[in-house]
Amino acid sequence: MDFNQKDIISIRDFSKEDIEYILDVAEKMEPVARSKKRSNVLSGNILGMLFYEPSTRTRLSFETAMKRLGGSTIGFAEANVSSATKGENLADTAKIISEYADAIVIRHNMEGAARFVADVVDVPVINAGDGAGQHPTQTLLDLYTMKRVLGRTENLHVSLIGDLKYGRTVHSLAYALAMFGVDMSFVSPTELRMPQSIVHDLSKTGVSVEETESIHDVIDKTDVLYVTRIQKERFPDPEEYSKIKGAYMIDLKLLKGTNAIVMHPLPRISEIAPEVDNTAYGRYFEQAFYGVPVRMAILSLLMDKIE
Amino acid sequence: MDFNQKDIISIRDFSKEDIEYILDVAEKMEPVARSKKRSNVLSGNILGMLFYEPSTRTRLSFETAMKRLGGSTIGFAEANVSSATKGENLADTAKIISEYADAIVIRHNMEGAARFVADVVDVPVINAGDGAGQHPTQTLLDLYTMKRVLGRTENLHVSLIGDLKYGRTVHSLAYALAMFGVDMSFVSPTELRMPQSIVHDLSKTGVSVEETESIHDVIDKTDVLYVTRIQKERFPDPEEYSKIKGAYMIDLKLLKGTNAIVMHPLPRISEIAPEVDNTAYGRYFEQAFYGVPVRMAILSLLMDKIE
Amino acid sequence: MDFNQKDIISIRDFSKEDIEYILDVAEKMEPVARSKKRSNVLSGNILGMLFYEPSTRTRLSFETAMKRLGGSTIGFAEANVSSATKGENLADTAKIISEYADAIVIRHNMEGAARFVADVVDVPVINAGDGAGQHPTQTLLDLYTMKRVLGRTENLHVSLIGDLKYGRTVHSLAYALAMFGVDMSFVSPTELRMPQSIVHDLSKTGVSVEETESIHDVIDKTDVLYVTRIQKERFPDPEEYSKIKGAYMIDLKLLKGTNAIVMHPLPRISEIAPEVDNTAYGRYFEQAFYGVPVRMAILSLLMDKIE
Repeated sequence: MDFNQKDIISIRDFSKEDIEYILDVAEKMEPVARSKKRSNVLSGNILGMLFYEPSTRTRLSFETAMKRLGGSTIGFAEANVSSATKGENLADTAKIISEYADAIVIRHNMEGAARFVADVVDVPVINAGDGAGQHPTQTLLDLYTMKRVLGRTENLHVSLIGDLKYGRTVHSLAYALAMFGVDMSFVSPTELRMPQSIVHDLSKTGVSVEETESIHDVIDKTDVLYVTRIQKERFPDPEEYSKIKGAYMIDLKLLKGTNAIVMHPLPRISEIAPEVDNTAYGRYFEQAFYGVPVRMAILSLLMDKIE
Repeated sequence: MDFNQKDIISIRDFSKEDIEYILDVAEKMEPVARSKKRSNVLSGNILGMLFYEPSTRTRLSFETAMKRLGGSTIGFAEANVSSATKGENLADTAKIISEYADAIVIRHNMEGAARFVADVVDVPVINAGDGAGQHPTQTLLDLYTMKRVLGRTENLHVSLIGDLKYGRTVHSLAYALAMFGVDMSFVSPTELRMPQSIVHDLSKTGVSVEETESIHDVIDKTDVLYVTRIQKERFPDPEEYSKIKGAYMIDLKLLKGTNAIVMHPLPRISEIAPEVDNTAYGRYFEQAFYGVPVRMAILSLLMDKIE
Repeated sequence: MDFNQKDIISIRDFSKEDIEYILDVAEKMEPVARSKKRSNVLSGNILGMLFYEPSTRTRLSFETAMKRLGGSTIGFAEANVSSATKGENLADTAKIISEYADAIVIRHNMEGAARFVADVVDVPVINAGDGAGQHPTQTLLDLYTMKRVLGRTENLHVSLIGDLKYGRTVHSLAYALAMFGVDMSFVSPTELRMPQSIVHDLSKTGVSVEETESIHDVIDKTDVLYVTRIQKERFPDPEEYSKIKGAYMIDLKLLKGTNAIVMHPLPRISEIAPEVDNTAYGRYFEQAFYGVPVRMAILSLLMDKIE
């Protein structure tokens, strides 16, 4: 794929080769992300940030990616700072930002918002999360983390745990892992199972997928334990929530003796015990860092500024 | 005029020659605004942004102008992020920002705020809108749009339509157009007519000005149709507002067969039909873009950094 | 002290020699702060800003310091823009920012927050005010102001006036002045006296400290009058507040014939009459400016980028 001026809306728009190429470029950029090497490839370039929902990680790692490469950002971090308060519609706001910036990154609570914006503007658009929809750069950094920590994105067993029903992160990741032939276990309470349409799609690709309610069933064969937050709001009964919360909490007792690494898109609430943070199991902060080289790669590719 | 360290408060502070000079400099800077050419003339320079009212276009295009030229911005996009919440007055806040920045751009809901700030600080101050007062860089980009799209800022017929009573944009623009000998039509409901003191001022300059309630009276001779928003709050009777809203909406049926281009300071609500957007009539997004080279020119001139 | 990768939490972590060295570096950087000279020593470097409380001066002067040196900033200016709204704890937010940035500056309403963050992250942390706790860069710029305006930080008589009980600024400053052998007068209403534990600590250092309720007792021998805000909330009785406010207001009548310069951490409300602003007595805006070279020095030292 020629990335110049492309939109990044869904991980499913990419081939396995596209993804591998992005991860290779990211690896070359890592010294710049670590501030060990300077680069000015995006000097004079501007990224427009349309964040209609608050975000720390995604917004700041895009900003970091631009700034480490000599570029700048403009935009807003909350809907109320923008002209949205004067009643302007999304299309007009996006069109105007596209007159100023070389690319746009958008987070919106409405599924399909990024695709919609991509259709009305002439600059590349990156989807940074659209409601229950997609968040493709998160998936790319998840894969990059496996590549850097485990040395590979193939021959793995990945267990996704937590809220598999509503989490856009795990849906995108599962599709991407299937491209790499990775076997998966889906670990969740019944109420929050992976949508059956996705399980069906994945099975057709030839990878092995299994569903279970207990992490103990799969922990021994797991290379990557991908943990997500279970939100209280999903349960009408607070007691039910408490019970489930306890059963899906990851601690050292569970991990001891296994080879699993623990990943998490963050923020976490209480689903991973802090005791895991500074061990070789816990990789979620390192994973957050990897968002920077991956987004550097994407931004440079879209703006055709790979050296 | 020597622009070095000057304040930009009202379009009426400029001569025709001053304006033409700014537009010439803007044209030279356009390739940088389009990211076709790099520049670092404002590297190390800082623009202080005091936005006491939310703004997308004006704020972001000033930021873009600085950043495309290698400079930076500091400041706030809302009053509540500043020390205003601790009871600090405008003069003190502005004086402090002037200790950090090489120039200040201010938007404030109070008429006269920019002039007041210019009087208390030692760095150049740019008025980015002060209540019902002035917004001179908007007028400059309006003129620049005519220059770039129509090739001239003279020998034109410009029709201003919508809320001509409260709109600071149209007041400033009308004065500037009169300097260039441009004939004008003012199209508005009776309740929102251009203030008679302005009509009187303009008549004295020798240009032809006429007032009408119907766009159909003037559309055939119009080169530029400058549309502004009619705000619901202006009408005590919602039915009256609905009727007027309909009569002042611009669509392709009206424009077909004319030579008019449509401009708008944006944001628009429903006064221009979306079908106009991607035609040769609709120039309002291009107009938004032209805010960047015009503000680049102004910033470089004030900081004495024209190459 | 080797400053590379150090945390800046409390002024009491520094020796007199450390402070003198920082002030010397600041002086060398002043031409860059004044935009008279360009520097790119922090090009590609990023400062993470965690401002859980609104701030104009401190936040913007840190931003200015980074940007004048070619660096960038990321972060948030209010708690509600961050993931704090999703329930993320301070440690996790700080750890993530530390994955993106080369150093962190934090303002928080909770005493001890900066030290806590310094303990959990691997990058240098600068305390920009933690509740009633410390604000060491304010103290450094206060000392720098004395050095630049009066030519020395020794052989001075400094009178601290206003709220000496709750003001973190005056506590830190008093400790630092004692290191330089500076005699001090503490001028406050009885309700807002300097905590006796601090008076005791200072006495032990050998400097002369006296307490009084009246500025008239000390004004003649004062070289530096350091004024702070008296907050209405400290007084249950509004009449009592009014009376005290009047007695602690600095005007030209008081200053005439003295050699005192007036400093203030700002924002001021009414404790200094505006007539003092443009005289040789009033130095508080100049003091605000000196925050820039001092913070430039600190940032360059922590990131080991002194040329």
